[in-house]
Amino acid sequence: MAVNLPEMGALAPVPGIRVGSAAAGVRYSGRDDLALFELAPGTTVGGIFTRSAFRAPPVTVAASRLGRARGLVVNSGNANAATGEVGLRDAEQSCALAAAALGCRGLYVLRFSRGVMGLFLPLDGMAAGVTDAAAALAAGGWEQAARAIMTTDTAPKGVSGTFDIGGHRVSATAIIKGSGMIRPDMATMLAFLGTDAALSEGAVQSLARDLGARSFNRLTIDGDTSTNDAFVVAATGRSGTGDEQYDALLAALTPLVVELAERTVRDGEGATRFVTIVVEGGASDEECLQVAYAVAHSPLVKTALFAGDPNWGRFCMAIGKAGVEGLEPDRVSLDLDDVRVAENGLVAPSYTEAAGAAVMRQDEFTVRIGLGRGDCRETVWTSDLSYDYVRINAEYRT
Amino acid sequence: MAVNLPEMGALAPVPGIRVGSAAAGVRYSGRDDLALFELAPGTTVGGIFTRSAFRAPPVTVAASRLGRARGLVVNSGNANAATGEVGLRDAEQSCALAAAALGCRGLYVLRFSRGVMGLFLPLDGMAAGVTDAAAALAAGGWEQAARAIMTTDTAPKGVSGTFDIGGHRVSATAIIKGSGMIRPDMATMLAFLGTDAALSEGAVQSLARDLGARSFNRLTIDGDTSTNDAFVVAATGRSGTGDEQYDALLAALTPLVVELAERTVRDGEGATRFVTIVVEGGASDEECLQVAYAVAHSPLVKTALFAGDPNWGRFCMAIGKAGVEGLEPDRVSLDLDDVRVAENGLVAPSYTEAAGAAVMRQDEFTVRIGLGRGDCRETVWTSDLSYDYVRINAEYRT
Repeated sequence: MAVNLPEMGALAPVPGIRVGSAAAGVRYSGRDDLALFELAPGTTVGGIFTRSAFRAPPVTVAASRLGRARGLVVNSGNANAATGEVGLRDAEQSCALAAAALGCRGLYVLRFSRGVMGLFLPLDGMAAGVTDAAAALAAGGWEQAARAIMTTDTAPKGVSGTFDIGGHRVSATAIIKGSGMIRPDMATMLAFLGTDAALSEGAVQSLARDLGARSFNRLTIDGDTSTNDAFVVAATGRSGTGDEQYDALLAALTPLVVELAERTVRDGEGATRFVTIVVEGGASDEECLQVAYAVAHSPLVKTALFAGDPNWGRFCMAIGKAGVEGLEPDRVSLDLDDVRVAENGLVAPSYTEAAGAAVMRQDEFTVRIGLGRGDCRETVWTSDLSYDYVRINAEYRT
Repeated sequence: MAVNLPEMGALAPVPGIRVGSAAAGVRYSGRDDLALFELAPGTTVGGIFTRSAFRAPPVTVAASRLGRARGLVVNSGNANAATGEVGLRDAEQSCALAAAALGCRGLYVLRFSRGVMGLFLPLDGMAAGVTDAAAALAAGGWEQAARAIMTTDTAPKGVSGTFDIGGHRVSATAIIKGSGMIRPDMATMLAFLGTDAALSEGAVQSLARDLGARSFNRLTIDGDTSTNDAFVVAATGRSGTGDEQYDALLAALTPLVVELAERTVRDGEGATRFVTIVVEGGASDEECLQVAYAVAHSPLVKTALFAGDPNWGRFCMAIGKAGVEGLEPDRVSLDLDDVRVAENGLVAPSYTEAAGAAVMRQDEFTVRIGLGRGDCRETVWTSDLSYDYVRINAEYRT
């Protein structure tokens, strides 16, 4: 069902990182469901996490161990969420298993889980899984790991890049798992970016935050927020590029994570369209985002996107409920790609339904909303609400 | 598709109000789509309206004419929304037509429209429709009017009651149109309540606000907000009951509008379940509502409701994203009817999936969430997210 999702190409190794995957039998059978990342000594790790009040135990563990780390251990199939003290102990125990395999202390391993919420993590297969994953550790293990962390994703998603920054060659590879329950500004889904840049603990944390703000925090599938979201950046320091090239590094890595964010929306649960929502002419970035999310989250807009119905009234409805103080409807405009649908709050004289429908028949297009209040502008990516979204989520546990 | 929606019984006349319906050919053919209410001289009218910034022209007209009124004119099929100055002129012109038929000034007629947004109202049939509706005016015209104002409703919805208040017999009849795009606290859908109580302009406005707060502002289908919502109370003064019996009148009428609100959810677009969400143990009413709406609007919770899946994790997810400051997950509890699913933030020792599934297989049940923070409590009614919700809204204009 994914919308023009590019096939994952080869993922390049990142000096200082080895990756291994294995089948721990958490929930799925016949596939890997555990990924282990070995980080070279000296690696700094930054991350941003879900803002849910029901933060899952693995998130609590991971968030408390940012800074210096030697390993990441990830499972799919079980989120270990809403599992309290038991869940916390289970998360820590998996870290201890991984630490033993990696030859470091448990405190240097971060933990990540995605899958069904509210069930205790079955630890039976975990020890064997970690052992197998450790045995499989390889510089070229990224692609297999991208597969191991999938849940409802229809395909693995990862990107690589190399950049010349400050006279040094810098490598970066990132993988992501996520296709639903993704609500921006509460961090993101599970995404891991490894680079051989040399960054201080402060700089790597800034990098996670700045990259997240420009990519994962601008996409939305259904407006729901996972208890387990995390985006983690690990910098091994094998390349000579460091804190002093921060801006250049941020600029180089941004297209990489934006690409990954876009792929996540393309693989949105039940998605049949990939829609870019641009809100411009706002008095502030915040109000542009307010409107963009009101539109992107509206079930009525999303069903119209699914139907390919250029229903100007539904866009008005969503813009109207966004809660922007003093919004003047008669300054609002709407364009679908290069077709002007409405201006001054009214259907444009030149507009024809046929022209609007032609744009919305495409599997990707841009919805551009003008507020006529200022110069600010924001972009959000989203998908539609299809029968398949309902099916996937109605059948998830059955 | 409606969930145990009671058939509309006979609706009682309200002294001082006559109602007529007709086919004005706005959008539908072969059915009435226009309702006209004639209000006796001296009738006071109060109302609450959508908070959308894209308030539709008929809402602007109606909201400016509260106080004393002689008529209401309502059409289905076209919302006359996002239609600007032209829409305002069209709304006023329909009022003028109705006023001519009722023998009053145009300013004493309020205007209401529901249906497709963003299209200009076809005025061709309006004059003939108003003439026909005026010719059909009768004290017993309520039931036909309840049919005329339907859009995606599967059945007409109305209730009547008579009460003895302060030694007087008071009558009330109310009808409603609404089955989607209903977001509480932004007023409601189109609902009209007529009573023969004698109320001042101030009291009738308080009554509309107080009744709305206890009924229509506590239900949600999809979290979307119409540009055209309105709830109007007309008090003809034919009964001797007046302002001094306000509290008794409010108490008597509340069950009537709660019943109407519940029926609206039962007739929610694509609804297969009628779910009452109770949030208790909150530190404030506001945070109880915040949690209740976060749960009621979550697509993942709504698809679980559709599937009959007692997915405790999804409830956690929605509670967690509600934005309640300092919420402690380990004080949260969840009950499905009388089955304790979770307590202290964890699945309850006594809980079995079979017991939870048995509750959720029913077509109506109560989700009770305890926050463990205080004594406040709020209730919201909602429906599920089904294939039919997607179908109805994907096919709406086609």
